[in-house]
Amino acid sequence: MTNKHKSSYAISKQLLQRLPLYLNFLKNYADKDGYVSAPMIASAMRLNEVQVRKDLAAVSSTGGKPKTGFATEQLIRDIEKFLGYDNVDEAVIAGAGRLGSALLAYSRFSEYGLKILMGFESDEKLIGTEIAGKQILSIDKLPDVCKRLNIHIGIITVPAESAQEVCDKMIAGGIQAIWNFAPIHLNVPDHVLVQNQDMAASLAILSKHLREKLEKKEEV
Amino acid sequence: MTNKHKSSYAISKQLLQRLPLYLNFLKNYADKDGYVSAPMIASAMRLNEVQVRKDLAAVSSTGGKPKTGFATEQLIRDIEKFLGYDNVDEAVIAGAGRLGSALLAYSRFSEYGLKILMGFESDEKLIGTEIAGKQILSIDKLPDVCKRLNIHIGIITVPAESAQEVCDKMIAGGIQAIWNFAPIHLNVPDHVLVQNQDMAASLAILSKHLREKLEKKEEV
Repeated sequence: MTNKHKSSYAISKQLLQRLPLYLNFLKNYADKDGYVSAPMIASAMRLNEVQVRKDLAAVSSTGGKPKTGFATEQLIRDIEKFLGYDNVDEAVIAGAGRLGSALLAYSRFSEYGLKILMGFESDEKLIGTEIAGKQILSIDKLPDVCKRLNIHIGIITVPAESAQEVCDKMIAGGIQAIWNFAPIHLNVPDHVLVQNQDMAASLAILSKHLREKLEKKEEV
Repeated sequence: MTNKHKSSYAISKQLLQRLPLYLNFLKNYADKDGYVSAPMIASAMRLNEVQVRKDLAAVSSTGGKPKTGFATEQLIRDIEKFLGYDNVDEAVIAGAGRLGSALLAYSRFSEYGLKILMGFESDEKLIGTEIAGKQILSIDKLPDVCKRLNIHIGIITVPAESAQEVCDKMIAGGIQAIWNFAPIHLNVPDHVLVQNQDMAASLAILSKHLREKLEKKEEV
């Protein structure tokens, strides 16, 4: 996870449930000077002021200034970061066959600050095993795990016939960007990015270029 | 191999040695009417007419017409096809690690009429083994094997530090198109095509797009 809490304030389930409410308030808050204070929020949201102060201290990267309070935009970003809404560094794989395994074990993603956390499988023989130190879980757990860990990138290396089903599970889990190795067109909502990676087509393109080059040479 | 001989005429080593000579003659032959005959070739190349007739019958797809002979351009293409000069369907892989193995075992290349014939490795433990029924040979054999089998496509899945050396071996073996998974720029002669496939960069691009999308959403 990319989230690091800034204070020793216990991260309670209650805090995690309040944060989206703060977010909603802040985004609709027409501020005059770009600042917002704990007492203001407490009063507007009918919460205990001490609690709001502690909550904001736990998530704010700046801590806020006495009297002026917190810069609203920065506080919004801090809460989103805390909630993992901006997590674009972690991914999961569905399909732990040869290609999925190769990607799970691929070390170079870390050079870009990226990490594939775990794999998901429908094959009972693979569920519960580890590949390159990464757990392989049942595909049925994918939506829950992704939601819980705020993972937004999914990689599909399952066969074409189960790719759409897996894709739907990913979307149910809050995945917003899919790297698709299955050779089919995925139906996704507008807000989901899909990057297709058809390995066979890639080699076919190279082969086609080579053929064109050889034929051109023949004509000369 | 894509070569299929059209007659029962024995494919002798001598024939295979004569074919490039025919090719050379035909490519430099300024024909008046676009046709060439066995007696003409025999006379110009000081070869036995019967032998030339048999040679051309063995490789020609049309068989040639009495009196007019063979359409020159077609005969050139037939000889090149027979020699496998136009082979754009077969490839080899250098590097039989996880990614190389996944590609060796990948079944969908055949949907495009493509085939990865074998793998090459420097790791003694892997040399002599098979992956998905395909032999893993010593990397030192790559140039010879590619030349002998007229293979023009090479796939590089070795680590970056040995990729250029492997690339040079491929070029020495007549490889003209390289699918490069190693994260380095390969130095190749002008006539060699290179298609780079940096898996980490691909995921990084998707991650970047997602970040841009999330930031855009934040601004709204």
